[in-house]
Amino acid sequence: MKRLINDPYDVVEEMLAGYVTAHKDHVVLDQASEAQGRVVVSKSAKQKDKVGVIIGGGSGHEPLFLGYVGKGFADAAVIGNINTSPSPDPCYASVRAVDTGKGCIYLYGNYAGDVMNFDMGAEKADEEDGIRVETVLITDDVISSENIEDRRGIAGDFFVFKVAGAKAEMGGDLDEVVAVAKKCNDVTRTMGVAMSSATLPSKGGPIFEMEDGDMEIGMGIHGEPGVRRGKIEPADKVIDQIMAPILADLPYTAGDEVYVLVNSLGATPLMDLHICFRRVAEILAEKGITIYKSLIGSYASSMDMAGMSVTLVKLDDEIKELLDYPCDTPYFKQF
Amino acid sequence: MKRLINDPYDVVEEMLAGYVTAHKDHVVLDQASEAQGRVVVSKSAKQKDKVGVIIGGGSGHEPLFLGYVGKGFADAAVIGNINTSPSPDPCYASVRAVDTGKGCIYLYGNYAGDVMNFDMGAEKADEEDGIRVETVLITDDVISSENIEDRRGIAGDFFVFKVAGAKAEMGGDLDEVVAVAKKCNDVTRTMGVAMSSATLPSKGGPIFEMEDGDMEIGMGIHGEPGVRRGKIEPADKVIDQIMAPILADLPYTAGDEVYVLVNSLGATPLMDLHICFRRVAEILAEKGITIYKSLIGSYASSMDMAGMSVTLVKLDDEIKELLDYPCDTPYFKQF
Repeated sequence: MKRLINDPYDVVEEMLAGYVTAHKDHVVLDQASEAQGRVVVSKSAKQKDKVGVIIGGGSGHEPLFLGYVGKGFADAAVIGNINTSPSPDPCYASVRAVDTGKGCIYLYGNYAGDVMNFDMGAEKADEEDGIRVETVLITDDVISSENIEDRRGIAGDFFVFKVAGAKAEMGGDLDEVVAVAKKCNDVTRTMGVAMSSATLPSKGGPIFEMEDGDMEIGMGIHGEPGVRRGKIEPADKVIDQIMAPILADLPYTAGDEVYVLVNSLGATPLMDLHICFRRVAEILAEKGITIYKSLIGSYASSMDMAGMSVTLVKLDDEIKELLDYPCDTPYFKQF
Repeated sequence: MKRLINDPYDVVEEMLAGYVTAHKDHVVLDQASEAQGRVVVSKSAKQKDKVGVIIGGGSGHEPLFLGYVGKGFADAAVIGNINTSPSPDPCYASVRAVDTGKGCIYLYGNYAGDVMNFDMGAEKADEEDGIRVETVLITDDVISSENIEDRRGIAGDFFVFKVAGAKAEMGGDLDEVVAVAKKCNDVTRTMGVAMSSATLPSKGGPIFEMEDGDMEIGMGIHGEPGVRRGKIEPADKVIDQIMAPILADLPYTAGDEVYVLVNSLGATPLMDLHICFRRVAEILAEKGITIYKSLIGSYASSMDMAGMSVTLVKLDDEIKELLDYPCDTPYFKQF
């Protein structure tokens, strides 16, 4: 294992200690006992009356989730252990930390543990404090299920969080924030490839086995099975196999506009991501689909996993405006 | 090798093709024949009369150098092959691409090949076009030599580029831009640790051998020898060994203020960087040194190398103002 950590059971607490120190201009750790030190709150939270935008999930996907807490984006992130949902109490505490009387929205990738625990947090917020909390699950991973509502959420999380954060900042009410989050999720599609497992600190090695030189098309960010394992192929061939299922999954027509994210799962360098993006752009140009803007980097990782994913968001004027809206977080700034 | 590339000899051209497409709002490739397709130019270049700020070096360190081309930062980056200096013609072409009559500054890490080729570019700009080009070499890698002027430039490049870019944007003349770049380099110190080699596309494997589980304290970003190789130790012990030589290398006294960069060389995840930053902050607090701001991420990589570095910039009011000055590049935005 090529990691720089101390006690493997302290990685999340030590990461959070470093995080809130490094990014002290943007965030604080919620001190409420129920937060259990696992709720990162924006310094801009509660500065004005607005819908509270709460994101979260297991650790090990940084900068997802805590990196996107800040003005115009999420008001709080609830932090679980590595690849593990946060428990209900911090989910509940996050609501109390950011609610201004306009209610809150939970946004996270569709994983059973997260659904169970965030739902318990929402119930408690309703029962104890009378705060309304709505949930939108992100389901962008095209190959994770035939049924869209059963799909997992991966790098597309970023875009759904962003539109909800913008809508809340612009003064939208809870129903409106829920509506734009659902709308964005409906037009967001991702597919990836993995070339190694992440390493798990508590295990001191890889989470799952993968032979050096192999890749798995469609593998999830926790190592969920993909569609095919084989030898690593040239980047253009890999991108072709990723883009085909994405483009088949929504009706795309010539003239459509998309926002593109080429995302590193951790160890895949910017050089390779730009080589891959080059092919994504060629394929979209062939189909007459226009690239509105692109992001290339590590936006949703799996620690030191080698691999990448491509996300397309099919745009309309409303989603464009929300994605372009200014925000200021440690890992995404726009002005 | 866990890389996503096509022909290994096309990686730089394909990366650049992807780069200028993805970041078309910020940059273009210089079309002059002498640029050889290796000069990335800011769309804000030549929009007003100012000193031209030119950075560059070998590829494989992305987002260094091309990621920092944009308004308020560098006007152009000259791009070499992997771990190889750009040749003299593109160095020369970059001057013609950005000069507005106020002269240009070359800024790059101190490596013999870069010095030779950029110097030839500067001579040609003087002889052919009468354009004055000054050079400031970055020498932040504390353990690379006893003599400061013989030291290599690594992640500290970022800060020297930033202050020069800001000073030029603010209207400073060439002598003033040179002066702030030198001043910033004089107070910037970096040291790193490596836990693996990067993989070299043309070789299809690691550049040098390193046993899994080993680390080398002080290793350079191309694999230049460090001070000690051994088993990977706990993060806090590693950081202690990095911080001691940095702090011994400048007079630091209680009350000093520093800008901190904890930089991933590629495969070391944000989780680990924040754990490391936590210890950096503890050490600085013990010494009474105040952290003004911090950056945690991959700012100067070696492709997929596992490892990280710590950079400290000792601040005064002038350097703070320049580091805080607004800029807008694909990989660093500030407002």
